[in-house]
Amino acid sequence: MAPVTVFGSAVFANAARVLVCLEEVGIEYEVVEVDYMAKEHKGPEHLSRNPFGQIPALQDGDVMLFESRAISKYVLRKYGKASNVDLLREDSAEEAALVDVWTEVEAHHYFPAIAPIVYECVVFPARLGMQPNQKVVDESLEKLGKVLEIYEARLSKSKYLAGDFFSFADLTHFPYTYYFMKTTHASLLDKFPHVKAWWEDLMSRPSTKKHGAGMFLEP
Amino acid sequence: MAPVTVFGSAVFANAARVLVCLEEVGIEYEVVEVDYMAKEHKGPEHLSRNPFGQIPALQDGDVMLFESRAISKYVLRKYGKASNVDLLREDSAEEAALVDVWTEVEAHHYFPAIAPIVYECVVFPARLGMQPNQKVVDESLEKLGKVLEIYEARLSKSKYLAGDFFSFADLTHFPYTYYFMKTTHASLLDKFPHVKAWWEDLMSRPSTKKHGAGMFLEP
Repeated sequence: MAPVTVFGSAVFANAARVLVCLEEVGIEYEVVEVDYMAKEHKGPEHLSRNPFGQIPALQDGDVMLFESRAISKYVLRKYGKASNVDLLREDSAEEAALVDVWTEVEAHHYFPAIAPIVYECVVFPARLGMQPNQKVVDESLEKLGKVLEIYEARLSKSKYLAGDFFSFADLTHFPYTYYFMKTTHASLLDKFPHVKAWWEDLMSRPSTKKHGAGMFLEP
Repeated sequence: MAPVTVFGSAVFANAARVLVCLEEVGIEYEVVEVDYMAKEHKGPEHLSRNPFGQIPALQDGDVMLFESRAISKYVLRKYGKASNVDLLREDSAEEAALVDVWTEVEAHHYFPAIAPIVYECVVFPARLGMQPNQKVVDESLEKLGKVLEIYEARLSKSKYLAGDFFSFADLTHFPYTYYFMKTTHASLLDKFPHVKAWWEDLMSRPSTKKHGAGMFLEP
């Protein structure tokens, strides 16, 4: 059988989310590059994979999926059990719910605060040669600081976001935080010792070490 | 045992998402009002339920949850099986993935396009006595039209978003679409016959009929 195929490499943060999940469950997979600068993601072939023309998509036999958080859950749900890796905790309604809560918090609170900083300070300079818009960066840093206060309180009560077990709720924070930590604003985390320790724990995993190495965008 | 408690009534779109799920699984629940105008959602009691100070939260015994999409999945996962209601399809990795894909599409494409129209044309006029910002409305209508083109293509291939089965991926569209359909822009759906038929199907369900009736915001 053909291995699982990911369309989009780790340099795309949302593809990196999927790739670390594939590493965690330890299955074979292949990465097909999508040429962003040539707008291949808006071409007919990629649109047939993802009608919204975004990276990544994933193919597994006849199944074609898009939306990185949905793909990640598919990978973890389908292949986790065989590898004894349970990052969704769906055997417990309560644990699964807490994984979902903090996965949603990433999507609706953390990501909207951190992503503009990553775009302004890493992605736009590297891809478009632009200088960061300081107003956007400052406003986002303020928002992120408020979100991190809540994370600090949470992580002072449990080792990981969903409880005392590592889960997808933690892992989904990897790609944008990884890029953020490459910026001069990384020192923000020093104000939040539990968050900092949680991040260092997350970065000690083989999955994040491996794909972090592929996430280099030269400013 | 005390019934499940929802903090926030159906007038709050994100609470309505949870309430229709509770109706679908047919369990007993109680709704506790949170006084938005008195900023009760930012007070210590509600912050202890949801540190982000948003509506809704849900309590089920010792479990306290927030983020409406996470709460909804918890309700469907924990109580659906006993009622023979399976809106998550987690017994099939592929079906569950398609439910997740279109649930994510709602969160990341549909909601960002439709929500500003709902806020400008329904929520702000009713709560703050404001007139709609026409520029925001027009830009959002254009975005929503593009999203609906993709929905039209999808729904011309399968009866529901995740496939030929009704799922949470459909139901999660209810609250904001319900308010949108109360605006003068509702006719946008006439351009998308499959979307319109899907919406009418969604509105024929007892769960949406019941809670739609509680979603009246007088402009």
